[in-house]
Amino acid sequence: MKRQVYLSMKSLEEAREIFFNKINPDRKTGIETISTKEALGYFTAEPVFAKLSSPPFHSAAMDGVAVLAEKTYGTTERNPMILKLGTDAVWINTGQPLPEEFNSVIMVEKIHQKDDDFLEIRSPAYPWQNVRKVGEDIIASQLLLPQNHLIRPFDLGALICAGIFSVRVHLRPKVAIIPTGSELINHEHIVETGELKKRRIIEYNSVILAGLVRECNSIPFVYDIVPDVEEDIHNTLKKAVESEVDVVIINAGSSAGSKDFTAHIISEMGEVLVHGVAMMPGKPTILGIIKGKPIIGNPGYPVSATLSFDQFVKPLLFRLQGAYAPKRESVKVQPTRDIPSKLGTEEFLRVNIGKVGSGYVATPLSRAAGSITTLTKAEGLIRIPSTSEGISQEELIEAELLVSEEELLNTVVVIGSHDITIDILADEIRHKGHNIRISSSNVGSLGGLMALRKGMCHIAGTHLLDTENDQYNISFIKKYLKGMTVSIFNLVLRDQGLIIAKGNPKNIRGIEDLARDDVVFVNRQAGSGTRLLFDYRLNKLDIKSESITGYKNEEFTHMAVAVDVLSGSVDCGMGIFAAAKALNLDFIPMEREQYDIVIPTSMLDQMNIQTVLETIRSKHFKERVISLGGYDPSNSGDLWIEIQV
Amino acid sequence: MKRQVYLSMKSLEEAREIFFNKINPDRKTGIETISTKEALGYFTAEPVFAKLSSPPFHSAAMDGVAVLAEKTYGTTERNPMILKLGTDAVWINTGQPLPEEFNSVIMVEKIHQKDDDFLEIRSPAYPWQNVRKVGEDIIASQLLLPQNHLIRPFDLGALICAGIFSVRVHLRPKVAIIPTGSELINHEHIVETGELKKRRIIEYNSVILAGLVRECNSIPFVYDIVPDVEEDIHNTLKKAVESEVDVVIINAGSSAGSKDFTAHIISEMGEVLVHGVAMMPGKPTILGIIKGKPIIGNPGYPVSATLSFDQFVKPLLFRLQGAYAPKRESVKVQPTRDIPSKLGTEEFLRVNIGKVGSGYVATPLSRAAGSITTLTKAEGLIRIPSTSEGISQEELIEAELLVSEEELLNTVVVIGSHDITIDILADEIRHKGHNIRISSSNVGSLGGLMALRKGMCHIAGTHLLDTENDQYNISFIKKYLKGMTVSIFNLVLRDQGLIIAKGNPKNIRGIEDLARDDVVFVNRQAGSGTRLLFDYRLNKLDIKSESITGYKNEEFTHMAVAVDVLSGSVDCGMGIFAAAKALNLDFIPMEREQYDIVIPTSMLDQMNIQTVLETIRSKHFKERVISLGGYDPSNSGDLWIEIQV
Repeated sequence: MKRQVYLSMKSLEEAREIFFNKINPDRKTGIETISTKEALGYFTAEPVFAKLSSPPFHSAAMDGVAVLAEKTYGTTERNPMILKLGTDAVWINTGQPLPEEFNSVIMVEKIHQKDDDFLEIRSPAYPWQNVRKVGEDIIASQLLLPQNHLIRPFDLGALICAGIFSVRVHLRPKVAIIPTGSELINHEHIVETGELKKRRIIEYNSVILAGLVRECNSIPFVYDIVPDVEEDIHNTLKKAVESEVDVVIINAGSSAGSKDFTAHIISEMGEVLVHGVAMMPGKPTILGIIKGKPIIGNPGYPVSATLSFDQFVKPLLFRLQGAYAPKRESVKVQPTRDIPSKLGTEEFLRVNIGKVGSGYVATPLSRAAGSITTLTKAEGLIRIPSTSEGISQEELIEAELLVSEEELLNTVVVIGSHDITIDILADEIRHKGHNIRISSSNVGSLGGLMALRKGMCHIAGTHLLDTENDQYNISFIKKYLKGMTVSIFNLVLRDQGLIIAKGNPKNIRGIEDLARDDVVFVNRQAGSGTRLLFDYRLNKLDIKSESITGYKNEEFTHMAVAVDVLSGSVDCGMGIFAAAKALNLDFIPMEREQYDIVIPTSMLDQMNIQTVLETIRSKHFKERVISLGGYDPSNSGDLWIEIQV
Repeated sequence: MKRQVYLSMKSLEEAREIFFNKINPDRKTGIETISTKEALGYFTAEPVFAKLSSPPFHSAAMDGVAVLAEKTYGTTERNPMILKLGTDAVWINTGQPLPEEFNSVIMVEKIHQKDDDFLEIRSPAYPWQNVRKVGEDIIASQLLLPQNHLIRPFDLGALICAGIFSVRVHLRPKVAIIPTGSELINHEHIVETGELKKRRIIEYNSVILAGLVRECNSIPFVYDIVPDVEEDIHNTLKKAVESEVDVVIINAGSSAGSKDFTAHIISEMGEVLVHGVAMMPGKPTILGIIKGKPIIGNPGYPVSATLSFDQFVKPLLFRLQGAYAPKRESVKVQPTRDIPSKLGTEEFLRVNIGKVGSGYVATPLSRAAGSITTLTKAEGLIRIPSTSEGISQEELIEAELLVSEEELLNTVVVIGSHDITIDILADEIRHKGHNIRISSSNVGSLGGLMALRKGMCHIAGTHLLDTENDQYNISFIKKYLKGMTVSIFNLVLRDQGLIIAKGNPKNIRGIEDLARDDVVFVNRQAGSGTRLLFDYRLNKLDIKSESITGYKNEEFTHMAVAVDVLSGSVDCGMGIFAAAKALNLDFIPMEREQYDIVIPTSMLDQMNIQTVLETIRSKHFKERVISLGGYDPSNSGDLWIEIQV
């Protein structure tokens, strides 16, 4: 089987230079004349000069009466003047044309109406007072909008005002999106119990790409999925290149896998400019050109596809409209930990960001390019340059924002142990119409307390059992949060136990069975409350950890443990009931434990924090928590204790 | 005739509170289920929980071969292992499902293919290496998106990936826009030489409002223009309220003019909550409610209509979608001069903004609410609170941006004398595809030099004649720019003269005729180069300024002078040929003068400044300048002299 290797990999900088230099800068998508009122969001293709002046004639700038100023001279408080309506003065409304015999407007507030025919004024008018002179705003022939200008709502008004009822604009670029892959299936063709059981993968990159294309004021044409057959891909690409589209994106088939024909096909029909870019995610990007049309071989992983689009297709689509892609807002953030990165590769790290205290803190999300939720959950992207071996938590670094800065200010950062009710809380807050986001990172209970100490979060979620006194959290807070004053509120009480496969095929009855040779266990990471509880129970039963197969396998969330059990890779793990229930697994309850949230007392008066607490105490939240099963919200939101450590 | 007065005017703060408190917060526009792939830009109406896990099965995270890890144990560099394809290993591409008998993937780079049937490996695999385990990204049942969440392109991907093929979203609000005014005419019905001659006004607010509504993810329904007849307005409003729209905007008819029936009609059909808001522009706003539907009486001036929309309709439309209106980016700016403002009124000042040196400087544009170009030309809005009597040039103040901050960084600020070729330059730079904006303010030549001295602009445009030595600009620069080192480039040579009505009805032959009793003159402001030139000529001819009718009338631009002549309000003014030509007026040439641009030498190496100079020197720019008439670009872009003052 033929295997390809990347052509010499290019740096992101080089790749962009090669690609954009090759695209003829004068090559645009064409020009069309459209009705002005439809022109919102288009870019002007030519300078626009006014055809009419505005106002088109002298007109009243105020409601009042039009007069000839010279006739009113000599009027004073003591010598008021009587004006006869119809001859000396006429009523006029704002915007109405000034009758030719008059040159001034007296505002309505300064007029005393004697009767239907006569008015009295107490001060003189001067010529052209309260009059908008012809051309005061726009003069016929003046440059109204330059070319390559994005048309905004008030630009539409200026155009029509100036007599421009149609406008020459750059055509919106048309983009072919060709998904490839024999394993893929179109989501619209799925019969749930049918195709999915055949272990096929739902194709969704084309939907992301179409959305991204639309955000570039461009028009996506999504093709049917093409199987990994060289001839089919060749023919589809040929069809796309010969069609009216301006740009072709061929998705996946861009890495060096056995069935990745894309680069070969492009080089047959045109030229491969770049194959492989030293960026992560996004490495397997192909940039080519066929008959003058840019062709982008976009990587298969959704995060790679998105970030590669961002670097190559987005700027291209704006250039084709004579414009430049807008940059995202950015802020300086402090990473919550050191983040190593590969020298020679430009890395785009997805991060959760929140404002804690005076600055923004950023917690890295998973780096997996296949994890689309790292984009949906992220508030920003940190770009680690190829010349860097990583970033230090000591330095401030720029993060591009995927949400607005305003949303960041309304983000409450929760770090600590994972619990599903945090998600419910996040949704419940929005249900109530509050403009607050919850950004949660799962690093275990101890990790949460550490983050709180370092000022990296507003709230730490923790369920650490002190086995000496059977009390939750307090002794750990006293040990790790020295110098701080914090308030501890209960979030929920919840059932911890063993998550086992449906029907309990290994017949596990409790922890004592974990030492059996035929039972594979998966553990939680050190520092997590669940791990602490598990070790405590092991110790009580005097079971040696070495006797448990898989004791050293560690997962970071309850759900990950449940997934391991569901997948059959392990037989058993410790976690909460809700995780077992979510995946329809069986559960052996062991403990009703206390999950608390810890908040620095100094933050309690912040509106966002108060809203979080109110929500936790609300009937609706508690009802939702109960419906999950395995939870007891009787104490939810209760202030348990305030500690000055 | 009945005249209304405003109900007690409300502050902006009060008005917003009264209005939004009255709108039922749970009142939404309704919910619909739409196909996920069409959901871009909608807001979720319910929380979305995953139906499928992702990956849906264990799958390869790399291209390579799938193996059973345990079988590879013991492999080393010295003891390589041979794997038989088909039994010990199978080729697998990224994303493909892992066959059930295997638990690990060895990446292609680590495999040595012996022949079609056998592979060699030199290190062992460990279980689950390079495998994406089922549910690693998304677990069926997990919260994917909270409610009231704006759906972005990658959210679409996450939804489809999780088996969510349709999604419950808030319906886009529908907004009726009713233009009123007997003087108005729909631009689409205009026969240019017909209706416009009847002194009717082109209605364009509805087009602006429709664009603003679209930018709020909402759907505008623009009604036909309703004449100022109470019954007609009543009936149209009734029809709109009874239709399917969620919000009604009735444009104009909201001030206290004689034909402003709107408030009265709303109070008959429902309730007027606010009539008159202490904001400028935007004062005549009416806020009301009829049968639970919000009704906004929007002011008639386009800037007022836009800013009133911004304060009341935009937040409303987002709230109806369960969301909050995004705020504009803002920056801190330094005003180029003190700006007084009326106590008790919140003023929204349109400003030009550019980055000169280390900070942003803001130059106020005209405050006229009828001037739509103050919005099209502005880079930002400064909000002067009602508690303030104005802002001082000493203090930094927040400006909301109407362009992106990135565009601001690419804005070259030109302040000084007005010349039409500056507009041509602005367009020509964009024609060449540069991402540079020119922001120009017209304050006269001396004003430009002052602005340069105060660090308020990059470039000053000046044509000041030193009558002692017949030399342009240098002696003024020496006098006013002490301590600076500046470079002077020629922009153009241009013809100055008298602008007179077409056909020269007053038979003006030169300056000597201006002292005639039947000739009315309009002057340029003191400090302008044109004024200097005019005074010099007067002096030479020994004509007393007092003898000239209108000598004290001052305009700020050539075009304003030309407009005064065109309108017949004056007979004559001094200005450039291009202004006369633009309005088809006659012209008596007097002087070919030198219009220079002055740039601090320290700024010359800035890319943007270099681009400006290159453009001025380009053949295409010079050709365009020549075609205007009255210009000589022979020296355009030439460095005339560098002066260290």
